[in-house]
Amino acid sequence: MEILQRIADNLRGIKDKTPLIHHITNYVTVNDCANMTLAIGASPVMADDMAEVEEMVAFAGALVLNMGTLNSRTIESMVVVGKTARQLGIPIIFDPVGVGATKFRTDTAERIIREVNPTVIRGNMSEIKIIAGFQEKIKGVDSMASGEDGEQVARELSQKLGAVIAITGKQDIIAYGDKTIRIDNGHPMLSQVTGTGCMATSLIGCFCGATKDFFTGTVAGIMTMGLAGELAQNSLRAGEGIGTFRMRLFDAVSNMPPEIFMEAGKVSKV
Amino acid sequence: MEILQRIADNLRGIKDKTPLIHHITNYVTVNDCANMTLAIGASPVMADDMAEVEEMVAFAGALVLNMGTLNSRTIESMVVVGKTARQLGIPIIFDPVGVGATKFRTDTAERIIREVNPTVIRGNMSEIKIIAGFQEKIKGVDSMASGEDGEQVARELSQKLGAVIAITGKQDIIAYGDKTIRIDNGHPMLSQVTGTGCMATSLIGCFCGATKDFFTGTVAGIMTMGLAGELAQNSLRAGEGIGTFRMRLFDAVSNMPPEIFMEAGKVSKV
Amino acid sequence: MEILQRIADNLRGIKDKTPLIHHITNYVTVNDCANMTLAIGASPVMADDMAEVEEMVAFAGALVLNMGTLNSRTIESMVVVGKTARQLGIPIIFDPVGVGATKFRTDTAERIIREVNPTVIRGNMSEIKIIAGFQEKIKGVDSMASGEDGEQVARELSQKLGAVIAITGKQDIIAYGDKTIRIDNGHPMLSQVTGTGCMATSLIGCFCGATKDFFTGTVAGIMTMGLAGELAQNSLRAGEGIGTFRMRLFDAVSNMPPEIFMEAGKVSKV
Repeated sequence: MEILQRIADNLRGIKDKTPLIHHITNYVTVNDCANMTLAIGASPVMADDMAEVEEMVAFAGALVLNMGTLNSRTIESMVVVGKTARQLGIPIIFDPVGVGATKFRTDTAERIIREVNPTVIRGNMSEIKIIAGFQEKIKGVDSMASGEDGEQVARELSQKLGAVIAITGKQDIIAYGDKTIRIDNGHPMLSQVTGTGCMATSLIGCFCGATKDFFTGTVAGIMTMGLAGELAQNSLRAGEGIGTFRMRLFDAVSNMPPEIFMEAGKVSKV
Repeated sequence: MEILQRIADNLRGIKDKTPLIHHITNYVTVNDCANMTLAIGASPVMADDMAEVEEMVAFAGALVLNMGTLNSRTIESMVVVGKTARQLGIPIIFDPVGVGATKFRTDTAERIIREVNPTVIRGNMSEIKIIAGFQEKIKGVDSMASGEDGEQVARELSQKLGAVIAITGKQDIIAYGDKTIRIDNGHPMLSQVTGTGCMATSLIGCFCGATKDFFTGTVAGIMTMGLAGELAQNSLRAGEGIGTFRMRLFDAVSNMPPEIFMEAGKVSKV
Repeated sequence: MEILQRIADNLRGIKDKTPLIHHITNYVTVNDCANMTLAIGASPVMADDMAEVEEMVAFAGALVLNMGTLNSRTIESMVVVGKTARQLGIPIIFDPVGVGATKFRTDTAERIIREVNPTVIRGNMSEIKIIAGFQEKIKGVDSMASGEDGEQVARELSQKLGAVIAITGKQDIIAYGDKTIRIDNGHPMLSQVTGTGCMATSLIGCFCGATKDFFTGTVAGIMTMGLAGELAQNSLRAGEGIGTFRMRLFDAVSNMPPEIFMEAGKVSKV
């Protein structure tokens, strides 16, 4: 499909431009997000103090906001830096980790969406359904939901918010305007390592930092993580488990050739 | 011994129930704690803001409180969430990292024990002796103490607090009421990687999240970490060091079969 | 050269004394700094709350202050603990990450240098030039600058501040008083992993925690990181990338024999 060629070009674009990806993210997976950003060829910066976020984001190719370990101090920074990025035309990738698990997270996600108006929102099925207004109950930050109605939820939410909506899971769904696509890459081991969702969000940031086509950038980031999962799992030998798998995700992304998307990318239009 | 069979069953219980383990922990080893929780088959959530901790813990199978990088904000969250967990009957695993190194840590540990009344307390010999009221001086967060009196300290402290007391080190001691057990698994390389104590505490949380027998859950968590150390060290080839060893800890836990406890667990009653 | 022998002795000194290295550092690479400190044979402690930093640093062999993820709370702790360390004669290693990228970082670096008077300052060329008063513009936290004038900048800044100045990059420059040295160890992959600069700073802390010769300690820390990069890269097999490379850095440091500095250390006096 034509989009796979565009993704390959987008990857080359990252390596040419090395966009700075400004993150305000959680302290659990922040190191992984930084290393994944470097692995794909972009440049990470993590800065969350109100005193500097507006100045820092001005250099950035994309802004990643991740709610993993939310606290009152960084929420204000997220809102302020998000508004600045919006004014500057810098794409904002929002990862509403655990929205629906607590009122605090739900209120914060709603506030960020309302005040910042993200360019891309990536979550699992439960999280995106909460944002779409469903009263689903979430346990912790993990996905429990599934369902055939994902495409419709994504499409309607995209049209309502004017944002690219990405639902990741066994099968990934990405919707923007009247376009919807499914991705069938990935491996179940990805759900046994913390931060693979956060890393996918960072990769979306990297691709969106090097293109104006944010739909393709979102598909690209998610597919890169899925392919990395396949390659990492394929490389495992007897006795190796999630520790080795996790390390190989970084190997896979750092060595990933642009051609892989045409060869191994599994997308279907809906 | 019969306890080894119970540990094996407990491991199966984790994989069946995938209990949510709510952590308020330090920013040094938090990623390792999350990945170790996933490796054993449970589900981690890290949430420390006062605005959400009480709501979050209500879904949890266990609560882990770890003082590694203590600050005023999270101390209040620890106390509040700990009281809530106690009311809800959720086991609380407390890791008083570095107690005795500073007055701030000693005061905080005393406050948490007094106000929260943890179900399990795990520390090294120095830390547990400080909690038991000995005026030992601690350098940093590492253990320097040793001594033959560990069993008595653990037993008396357990009876005083009504908590399971675990002292980890070359030999581990776990006491609860009139029961005391020693574990002889582990490897010295475990002390050359940061966070192996924190990970043991998280593993105790995982086991206690899947059983009502918190003594067995504590033995299980510590033995799992010890066996992981043995397996990881055994797997090393020439030129491999603590980087590879650390990765293999996760491999070992993610691949650990329930039978291993009966085959390789080394416990002795005192 | 004679300095290589002194570095080898210094490494033995770390393993003998296991100095405690007190860090106030960023939440992105803090785990790597702790593990690198352990790998070389020292003992890390991360403590940043005002309520305990002065008490904690009193046990320390060195203090590492790293601005990676600066916030208002920890800046105050850095200044207070830095002054205490200075009074106690404990060497202070300062890593002004991203100075020049925002006014907040530049102001903070200036304040720490003025009020704390660090023993060693390590940065990339851009960062050191900013501190030396050049009006260079920095994008994020990465180095973009190069230049033949590095030695002069380092030497003049060292004489002005009375501190050891280290500029790391393709070639490293260390200046103190009338001594200037270049190091040619390292590998470009080191720049593709987050935190290799921070880890080098921690290693300087470890060496300076075991010697009174802070110039040699600084050369030693930077050379150790460079040699680790060479060894890690050398060990890579087909298909391995930055994930494996990163893990092998820890293997290399944990297994590094003192003799390696005489055999593979590449220094030249200027």
